[in-house]
Amino acid sequence: MINRRGEVITSAVTNLDLHDISRAARTYGVRAVFCVTPLEDQQQLIGRLIEHWTEGYGARFNPDRREALKLLRIAASLTETIAAVTACEQQAPQMVATSARPQPGTIDCQKIGQRLADGIPQLLLFGTASGLAPEVIAAADAVLEPVVGCGVYNHLSVRSAAAIILDRLRFRRNGELAQ
Amino acid sequence: MINRRGEVITSAVTNLDLHDISRAARTYGVRAVFCVTPLEDQQQLIGRLIEHWTEGYGARFNPDRREALKLLRIAASLTETIAAVTACEQQAPQMVATSARPQPGTIDCQKIGQRLADGIPQLLLFGTASGLAPEVIAAADAVLEPVVGCGVYNHLSVRSAAAIILDRLRFRRNGELAQ
Repeated sequence: MINRRGEVITSAVTNLDLHDISRAARTYGVRAVFCVTPLEDQQQLIGRLIEHWTEGYGARFNPDRREALKLLRIAASLTETIAAVTACEQQAPQMVATSARPQPGTIDCQKIGQRLADGIPQLLLFGTASGLAPEVIAAADAVLEPVVGCGVYNHLSVRSAAAIILDRLRFRRNGELAQ
Repeated sequence: MINRRGEVITSAVTNLDLHDISRAARTYGVRAVFCVTPLEDQQQLIGRLIEHWTEGYGARFNPDRREALKLLRIAASLTETIAAVTACEQQAPQMVATSARPQPGTIDCQKIGQRLADGIPQLLLFGTASGLAPEVIAAADAVLEPVVGCGVYNHLSVRSAAAIILDRLRFRRNGELAQ
């Protein structure tokens, strides 16, 4: 990720990001959610969180939350994530970076919907802190257009942006409103 | 609100709800966000949070966040909220409750968009905990259809649901995709 000064950093995991994004993913039929961090203590923390909600007290307390958190995986790198998706889908995914910054050559949700309809797995990358590092965006197969509202203000939380993008994908798939 | 057992409760304020919903509101051109709680200590907590982000250190640290949190108001009741909106808009708003539970007679985002286009202020009510109390839903002028994804799973966070509904309102206004 980058921080507010544009420096490449490793961001800390935010508990609510994992919950909210997993819940939205479960709602919209996403196959898996990967939390990618090279930090071993953060990986252990996520592991405890997943265990609590899928097997521990949380699973009994809130079975609906369990359904969502069951989608959550831990990966140490993007390479490891791609390998896991490839093994599961039996083909390599296309990596689609997301960014709040306008840039040339972005694709829209309709395009991703077409690719999904063509049976090509799509791996959406969401950044925390001040967004994905430039080298991650450069390594992606495509960049999704920013979520824009009614003006130039463009500072959604990653939780909100992910929810909106999954909803747009649901309703724009195949180039038409599916509702 | 109601809790998991369906009992009417007063829920605690979640800091990230205020941030995420204010940021989404600012993105989509919403005029104000009211956090409604009868608990005086919670009102004071929200007041400190607003002060920090609109006038204190937070405002200098993150001016974008300031833009969002400036929309946030505190109210002790729905009656007080309606009075504040009426004073500001010079007409009473229509109250639209949201709920994850399917129920007869709900309206969709296109209908709300039509009302906005007709110049009628719309006051969207979002619940925390396990949702709005039945008497709040009964007192509303209308209930918005639940956000559904690809199946029956329907357990989004209020932060995600609010972001999705504002995005749908933006793109369905006047009965057509505005993008």
